[in-house]
Amino acid sequence: MLNDYIKLIDKNLENYLTAEYPNDLFKSMRYTVLLEGKRLRPVLCLEFCKILGGNIEDAIPTACAVEMLHAQTLIHDDLPCMDNDDFRRGKPSNHKVFGAAVATLAGDALLTFAPQIILKNSKNLKPETLLAVLDDFFTFGGARGVIAGQVIDIKCEGNKSAHTEKNLEYIHKHKTGDLFRLAIRSGARIAGADKENFEKADDFAQTFGLAFQIADDILDVTSNFEEMGKTLGKDAAADKLTYVSVYGIDNAKCKLLSLLEKCDNMNEDYNSEVLDEILKGIRKRVNL
Amino acid sequence: MLNDYIKLIDKNLENYLTAEYPNDLFKSMRYTVLLEGKRLRPVLCLEFCKILGGNIEDAIPTACAVEMLHAQTLIHDDLPCMDNDDFRRGKPSNHKVFGAAVATLAGDALLTFAPQIILKNSKNLKPETLLAVLDDFFTFGGARGVIAGQVIDIKCEGNKSAHTEKNLEYIHKHKTGDLFRLAIRSGARIAGADKENFEKADDFAQTFGLAFQIADDILDVTSNFEEMGKTLGKDAAADKLTYVSVYGIDNAKCKLLSLLEKCDNMNEDYNSEVLDEILKGIRKRVNL
Repeated sequence: MLNDYIKLIDKNLENYLTAEYPNDLFKSMRYTVLLEGKRLRPVLCLEFCKILGGNIEDAIPTACAVEMLHAQTLIHDDLPCMDNDDFRRGKPSNHKVFGAAVATLAGDALLTFAPQIILKNSKNLKPETLLAVLDDFFTFGGARGVIAGQVIDIKCEGNKSAHTEKNLEYIHKHKTGDLFRLAIRSGARIAGADKENFEKADDFAQTFGLAFQIADDILDVTSNFEEMGKTLGKDAAADKLTYVSVYGIDNAKCKLLSLLEKCDNMNEDYNSEVLDEILKGIRKRVNL
Repeated sequence: MLNDYIKLIDKNLENYLTAEYPNDLFKSMRYTVLLEGKRLRPVLCLEFCKILGGNIEDAIPTACAVEMLHAQTLIHDDLPCMDNDDFRRGKPSNHKVFGAAVATLAGDALLTFAPQIILKNSKNLKPETLLAVLDDFFTFGGARGVIAGQVIDIKCEGNKSAHTEKNLEYIHKHKTGDLFRLAIRSGARIAGADKENFEKADDFAQTFGLAFQIADDILDVTSNFEEMGKTLGKDAAADKLTYVSVYGIDNAKCKLLSLLEKCDNMNEDYNSEVLDEILKGIRKRVNL
């Protein structure tokens, strides 16, 4: 099931983002968006649409737009003026291939390309649903969402006095959580979920997002380049604020376990094989 | 009249973009958006809405969003990895004040903040008008618009073999023209213009946009820092492809004069004092 979703998403990403002129710009956009990935955010968007009684076809444009937004954050986060990462998903990062100028512009371009995919391909959605999805896209993808998280993340880097629990929570909530919330809330909206189901889905998204980020913080310490496809051990080297740096690796694992159990419990109602597979995947990677 | 528009726009920009947390991010966004400027794009948006029978109140959110998009292009164009400009509108450029990381993120943030201003504040627009305005925003502000122009501009810099008339036309059309088209088309859409009036307005936008860019190319050679508020003579120093570098300064002035005359002729139908004032302002600055 998970693989079927990934194939569906990859096919549609390829169709939406064809090679156009200027060649370098579109090559750079396609390079990161079409890199092989787990496609977790779009998968969760489609699966929550399905779980809550919607037609996944209606959610495909939004699912793909969320993945493009995710790719945008990766391109800009890796830039020399940000985290200065040379690798992403096992390949040279975007600016290493296209230069920082084109990589910056490719990221910019994805920020308007992605919501236009939603706008142009969501004919089956009621205008109020379409506008609510776009509104969420702007909020969670913007200054009150993922970008707010990245700003605080950068501010905390190498600045021990800012390594507080409050800042850690803020970074995790926004930098990582908000794209999962956008994905899952959009899926729920498109399915026409009622208030109770919508809020439950949003709650799952926040729990899952935090679990995902803690797993990422743990893997930065315990994993290796081959498994993760990006430079590791960088958090400690750059004195980043992470769950592991504040609470230590054992507490991080305990917290992760408890969040994954909460997700499992929520999935008892959903009874989703896809969610089960995703949650098991995280346990496996972190050896829990 | 022109000054009244500018005051109206400045007041609304200030209201839409208040200081929020994270402080640095919003300070950086506000720094460039709220810098004193001619506000040409939002003024043209409001004035075309009025000329074509609309209510300018309905166009204020979109006019402000176009100015925010313009500010976004300035912030990112000035970055060290792009044109590396230290000054803008007479003040240190965004990254000189906030650093390249925050400046990059502030630009990113404006790209989602601006269309959300349109979405959240355009209650009087029919859904199909609102969606058409947003669609234009994504097109002209994106990979098929202003960003396409910037990519080719960068590619041509210092690369004489790319200094062709075709590339020059492409850069002017997209890098400069597309934001004027977005502003004026949006004003016309919000006014509910019929096809003929819409296309005429769009034609004016393209003519005006080209005139504006040629004037800018001329002023880069003939003006000084005090008048322009940015580093000048940079086009020639960086071997940029400009109207002056291809056709020489005298031909550039002739072309500009003919485009301004075309705009004047089109304004005979509109009979707009504001357009007249703007066109006279360009003549005056270039001494034509």
